[in-house]
Amino acid sequence: MAGDDGYMASALAWADRAATHDDVPVGCVVVVDGEVVGAGENRREADADPTAHAEIVALRAAAQRLGRWRLSDATVYVTLEPCVMCAGALVSARVARVVIGALDEKAGAVGSRYNVLSDPRLLHEVAVDYGVGAEAAADQLRTFFAGRR
Amino acid sequence: MAGDDGYMASALAWADRAATHDDVPVGCVVVVDGEVVGAGENRREADADPTAHAEIVALRAAAQRLGRWRLSDATVYVTLEPCVMCAGALVSARVARVVIGALDEKAGAVGSRYNVLSDPRLLHEVAVDYGVGAEAAADQLRTFFAGRR
Repeated sequence: MAGDDGYMASALAWADRAATHDDVPVGCVVVVDGEVVGAGENRREADADPTAHAEIVALRAAAQRLGRWRLSDATVYVTLEPCVMCAGALVSARVARVVIGALDEKAGAVGSRYNVLSDPRLLHEVAVDYGVGAEAAADQLRTFFAGRR
Repeated sequence: MAGDDGYMASALAWADRAATHDDVPVGCVVVVDGEVVGAGENRREADADPTAHAEIVALRAAAQRLGRWRLSDATVYVTLEPCVMCAGALVSARVARVVIGALDEKAGAVGSRYNVLSDPRLLHEVAVDYGVGAEAAADQLRTFFAGRR
């Protein structure tokens, strides 16, 4: 698999790790010039950190690796539509593009509840693509929640 | 100074630290049962971290100290109206109350651009008070930006 599908497959693999520590399975990879420069999974429960969603973990890793907070050359792959916090973080990092797997109708901030990444009133707009790996991501989430019932 | 004014004075002191490392002066303290359990200043430039706004730094410190991500007994004092990312983080941490100094008409997400903390569609609503230490916070920001011109 190449391109978007390949990077989303990597994000899905990170999401699998989240489930191993009882966190909702969401994964994220940050790509610059074809290279993964940061990645992570949801670690809210594992780290007892309210900010440790997959996107925040991956953005921090990428910024640390590159030594800069401005990631305007980055494409971010995330298995679930970002929440308000994470959509705001993607704006804060000035990322170029976000590729999203499954939608989050309850709390998604990239189309479902809010449209944070395409708001001309904010200082930065982000290109968005939907539906890459959407079924696999939705399956992961369904399996996780079914196992907790 | 006691109560809200005293905690906001502490947040203003943290904001002063941000300016010493060339970060926009914003400070934040997290209070539970009258005790400061987490605090921090904007460290975006200092840490080259797009997520290192004062609120995120302070929430992470509080969660680490308390060993839990759910901060539903916390009141958060912040010198500037939170951006989308930080307002989302306050929801994510389920904080009880937020006290805000100066407003941010350009990017504020607690009344100015968005109303993230009082959105009944999201999973959690947060009580908000405005205007505590607002003039001192606005002065800090003006002084900082004037010095950079």
